[in-house]
Amino acid sequence: MSDETMRAAVWRKARDLRVEPVPIPSIRDPHAVKVKVAVCGICGSDLHEYAAGPIFIPVDEPHPISGGKAPIVMGHEFAGEVVEVGEKVTRLKVGDRVAIEPILSPNRDGAYLMDAYNLSPLLGFHGLSGGGGGFSEFTVVGEHMAHRMPDDLSWEQGALVEPAAVALHAVRQSTFKAGDSAVVFGAGPIGLMVIEALKVAGAAGIHAVEVSEARRAKAEQLGAVAHDPTAGDVVAALHEASGGGLDFAFEVTGIPEVLSQSIAATHPGGEIVVVSIWEQQASFQPNDLVIKERTMRGTIAYRHVYPAVMALMRQGYFRAEDLVTDRIGLDDVVEKGFERLLKEKSQIKIMVRP
Amino acid sequence: MSDETMRAAVWRKARDLRVEPVPIPSIRDPHAVKVKVAVCGICGSDLHEYAAGPIFIPVDEPHPISGGKAPIVMGHEFAGEVVEVGEKVTRLKVGDRVAIEPILSPNRDGAYLMDAYNLSPLLGFHGLSGGGGGFSEFTVVGEHMAHRMPDDLSWEQGALVEPAAVALHAVRQSTFKAGDSAVVFGAGPIGLMVIEALKVAGAAGIHAVEVSEARRAKAEQLGAVAHDPTAGDVVAALHEASGGGLDFAFEVTGIPEVLSQSIAATHPGGEIVVVSIWEQQASFQPNDLVIKERTMRGTIAYRHVYPAVMALMRQGYFRAEDLVTDRIGLDDVVEKGFERLLKEKSQIKIMVRP
Repeated sequence: MSDETMRAAVWRKARDLRVEPVPIPSIRDPHAVKVKVAVCGICGSDLHEYAAGPIFIPVDEPHPISGGKAPIVMGHEFAGEVVEVGEKVTRLKVGDRVAIEPILSPNRDGAYLMDAYNLSPLLGFHGLSGGGGGFSEFTVVGEHMAHRMPDDLSWEQGALVEPAAVALHAVRQSTFKAGDSAVVFGAGPIGLMVIEALKVAGAAGIHAVEVSEARRAKAEQLGAVAHDPTAGDVVAALHEASGGGLDFAFEVTGIPEVLSQSIAATHPGGEIVVVSIWEQQASFQPNDLVIKERTMRGTIAYRHVYPAVMALMRQGYFRAEDLVTDRIGLDDVVEKGFERLLKEKSQIKIMVRP
Repeated sequence: MSDETMRAAVWRKARDLRVEPVPIPSIRDPHAVKVKVAVCGICGSDLHEYAAGPIFIPVDEPHPISGGKAPIVMGHEFAGEVVEVGEKVTRLKVGDRVAIEPILSPNRDGAYLMDAYNLSPLLGFHGLSGGGGGFSEFTVVGEHMAHRMPDDLSWEQGALVEPAAVALHAVRQSTFKAGDSAVVFGAGPIGLMVIEALKVAGAAGIHAVEVSEARRAKAEQLGAVAHDPTAGDVVAALHEASGGGLDFAFEVTGIPEVLSQSIAATHPGGEIVVVSIWEQQASFQPNDLVIKERTMRGTIAYRHVYPAVMALMRQGYFRAEDLVTDRIGLDDVVEKGFERLLKEKSQIKIMVRP
């Protein structure tokens, strides 16, 4: 750390997120780069930590990779400009525009140790697990976490690579093939990104189930057929609309009752992909898997997909203009960011410019 | 039906199974064959119907394929000799020894309509869903349900093809590859058959979790490492024994608590195959799938595997001498069959000779 300070959003405990001066970080790892943050999105995980954390944030013991624990700087969906490089950095140079892949993995120090690095027992995120974050003017990350952006992608597209990677990874982990159909339960930011990823994958038909009228409208705008689950038997409606059940269901709500609905929405032999993080147990009838030979799989975060996401963005997928509903400054991050996202379902992605 | 009668075990309601005279069935469908039953095994599903049925047995409405409803003749794991053939039967002749695939499917009358016929909404079983069964001297089945047996397979091996097919299908439906490891929860008849199927598939290591000491001994005899779940933390023991979790877990108990254990027994990216039929809902923490990217799939019955099972039996798998623990006559089926299987966990497969 240097003696100079910058502004950053610091999480101390649930409902205690404050923008305050913190020391500007300096490079100490020769494989690290220092980034001037251009834009950082507010993520559903951030909201969970704000409203009901700590979940991923280390409080008692420091995270084994970052070495940090609360209070921590938040923000993990961000892009920025490289302003300094460690002496062993070879891929990047000062002035490069980069999208940050925030997973803290064992693949550090130039060594590539783990293929499925999103499954590391040390799983953590820059901006959630200590070591700095994107809701600040500067932050320092490992070179392997910074992906050079194509020139024609905006800073906001760069900040959207992270949530788009979650969605693309979820579809890639499934056995979805071009021509298959799917229903997405929950049309928040990740659910909408899953709709985009399903379009990438060549979906023949996409349905969305969402309580919020504004989010249903957004899902329809992206090309899905939207259903209001409060309007009647949504499973029956999906079977009716698909002629006997969808090929795939993506569960992006984390609501126990929705798990059974997402299973029942598929036809025999169908597949359910659980993308959400759960605060509680869920009960279901295992016969719904057994007698219909359905498959249910979980996916978490992403691995090895940042370059692909950016290539797809250049093709017109995951567009910021479809998903970003507001832009704010760092000082407004709590009132005009977190608090509004908790209240207004019409907000999808709010971008913060430090 | 002819005017002559034969002895058969007839289910009227739970705990009401009686051996009594019934009319000898005659061929009315030109694609059907009449079989003199040689041996019929007692299945776990039979026990469920006896103790707590009806489950598969149609009581109010006749089964749409068999046209029958309770009272029904039980017995669906059987082999016998063809004694008469319908006029349009081409593959079989009088005197052929056949193993019966009891699934009632739309693939009747010489027409092959459905590939995944075990997932038909009309799923039913000869011997559970009306139309006759194996706990009788004679029964009539569609030609497509009768598979000619190799000469060197005994009648008892023929009666074991059905449960072995369940196990082989479960392993085939999974992504198990030669060299993978697995744990089987529950070492009853199907669990033991799954151990055999895993040996067929080239398992590098097989563990079994089973409360009954006699069944643990049987699992060890078949080549598995057996664990007593009442002796301590069986998930920890499995992680210890496998160096961090198994590649696959096969759930063959239908006990809610065991579902979570079977998930936790696998490593990140592992796969859980649910083979059991469930009498109640089960609760689990979906994060155990999500954060570890595990897959859980259900399998039911079998399709297209009878010839393969018989070929594998000729190679020495699924041996009757390992699995058959007693032989009885039809008149003893309730007292020396069903009642004993409910009480004596040392019994695995009891064969009934009508």
